[in-house]
Amino acid sequence: MLDMSEFANAIFYSQPFSNFLGAELDQVGKDSAQISVAIREELRQQHGFAHGGVISYLADNSLTFAGGLALGGDALTAEFKINYVRPARGKRLIARASTLSAGSRQAVCQSLIYSVNDDGVESLCAAALGTIVAAPANPARE
Amino acid sequence: MLDMSEFANAIFYSQPFSNFLGAELDQVGKDSAQISVAIREELRQQHGFAHGGVISYLADNSLTFAGGLALGGDALTAEFKINYVRPARGKRLIARASTLSAGSRQAVCQSLIYSVNDDGVESLCAAALGTIVAAPANPARE
Amino acid sequence: MLDMSEFANAIFYSQPFSNFLGAELDQVGKDSAQISVAIREELRQQHGFAHGGVISYLADNSLTFAGGLALGGDALTAEFKINYVRPARGKRLIARASTLSAGSRQAVCQSLIYSVNDDGVESLCAAALGTIVAAPANPARE
Amino acid sequence: MLDMSEFANAIFYSQPFSNFLGAELDQVGKDSAQISVAIREELRQQHGFAHGGVISYLADNSLTFAGGLALGGDALTAEFKINYVRPARGKRLIARASTLSAGSRQAVCQSLIYSVNDDGVESLCAAALGTIVAAPANPARE
Repeated sequence: MLDMSEFANAIFYSQPFSNFLGAELDQVGKDSAQISVAIREELRQQHGFAHGGVISYLADNSLTFAGGLALGGDALTAEFKINYVRPARGKRLIARASTLSAGSRQAVCQSLIYSVNDDGVESLCAAALGTIVAAPANPARE
Repeated sequence: MLDMSEFANAIFYSQPFSNFLGAELDQVGKDSAQISVAIREELRQQHGFAHGGVISYLADNSLTFAGGLALGGDALTAEFKINYVRPARGKRLIARASTLSAGSRQAVCQSLIYSVNDDGVESLCAAALGTIVAAPANPARE
Repeated sequence: MLDMSEFANAIFYSQPFSNFLGAELDQVGKDSAQISVAIREELRQQHGFAHGGVISYLADNSLTFAGGLALGGDALTAEFKINYVRPARGKRLIARASTLSAGSRQAVCQSLIYSVNDDGVESLCAAALGTIVAAPANPARE
Repeated sequence: MLDMSEFANAIFYSQPFSNFLGAELDQVGKDSAQISVAIREELRQQHGFAHGGVISYLADNSLTFAGGLALGGDALTAEFKINYVRPARGKRLIARASTLSAGSRQAVCQSLIYSVNDDGVESLCAAALGTIVAAPANPARE
């Protein structure tokens, strides 16, 4: 049987872009995932907040992993929507994604993205909702 | 009078994240913008395609600039939705954003993101739709 | 002080379209709302399920009321996204909307829409996420 | 060979909800569709504009038909996002949907919804973007 946690970690750390950003796959569940990244200088926009593109990366990737875990293998984000609710200040961003509904080939997942300040206090900075589909290599597709 | 092209360029190249990715603001119009980036190794996912997070960055940022130009100043993406329609192969990604409707404080914009192969042929790889709001510093807010 | 429950009910039942569909505002909280409707013949699509347009009405309107309650008055849905996760069978649809984040003029809300079968068992049939803004007449806008 | 125009009309007018609203399938193309509806009293919200739920019905259904035509048969809207850009005044609403990209089982489509005043002048009142999937009965699924 496939150890899904090991599988998810192997995929995550083979993503050059995730490594480039310094993102980490903190935790995986049977249909959920948590990804985080330190807000270092390179990840900011012109006003010093984390760039929306970093937050949308966290949304996209956390949704993919939550959905992939629910679908039992490699998966792709087909689409998602994100609402930014507050500028992302602080030292770290954490995205927590979970699965609302999963069929055999497709899952609908949501992700809440928080910024964490120096005292460890979390503030919601974005919410996302999207569709994850089993990748061609996923056994669910056969 | 503010030269909006100069203003947009000044903001874009003061975004650490855009510089980190190597993105370029290719072109701005009165309510449109084009941003592109070379798909170098660091921007890929596990299968060698451009990572969805890079594409969502292009969607987010091109929408912000198209909307900001329509609103006449600094702006923020309040929310957007993106559909990935094809894996992003090739050497470069180009996002072309335009404004569907603009009021005094808010604009609704769309962006089409293309991958470009070695022969310069473009393929649509994602489509996005979102809301841009004038930033607190934007004269439209006063 | 405005009784928000009375206010919400007055607005809801003055919506000709809500009355036309036979929808009911079941419950309101300080930043949440529940709306439901019986799936009668007129609300179906070609395969006998509730039409997606009925479900999107429930999403739209439940988001508006949850956000309006959070914003303390009349409000509009600026945008939303909906994922249909399962055909809507059964006798009734229930939309439960809550507020994820609210500022002074704008709220981000989500809604989960369930179908209810003859035994009263609920199944998730759609999920929505959207932005609600205070209407011009809302005191929050002044 | 299936006459897609006849097929689309047969499906549309077998939708009880479309008939209930008084909607009409004005036009179909190889991957596009136009649906419209008169803004009669029953379709309004509390301020006299067309209810957002009517507009979201038009978005949903026009996307389904544009995508179904592109996919060559019966189809379902899997998800969509809608931005309301202006209150819908006037006598009629028109939704024009087209296909941005279509594979064998799935299409990404957009719809622009206009209100039409007494002089026949159209104003954009909403824009939508969504995913249409081939229904189980669609030959594309086999």
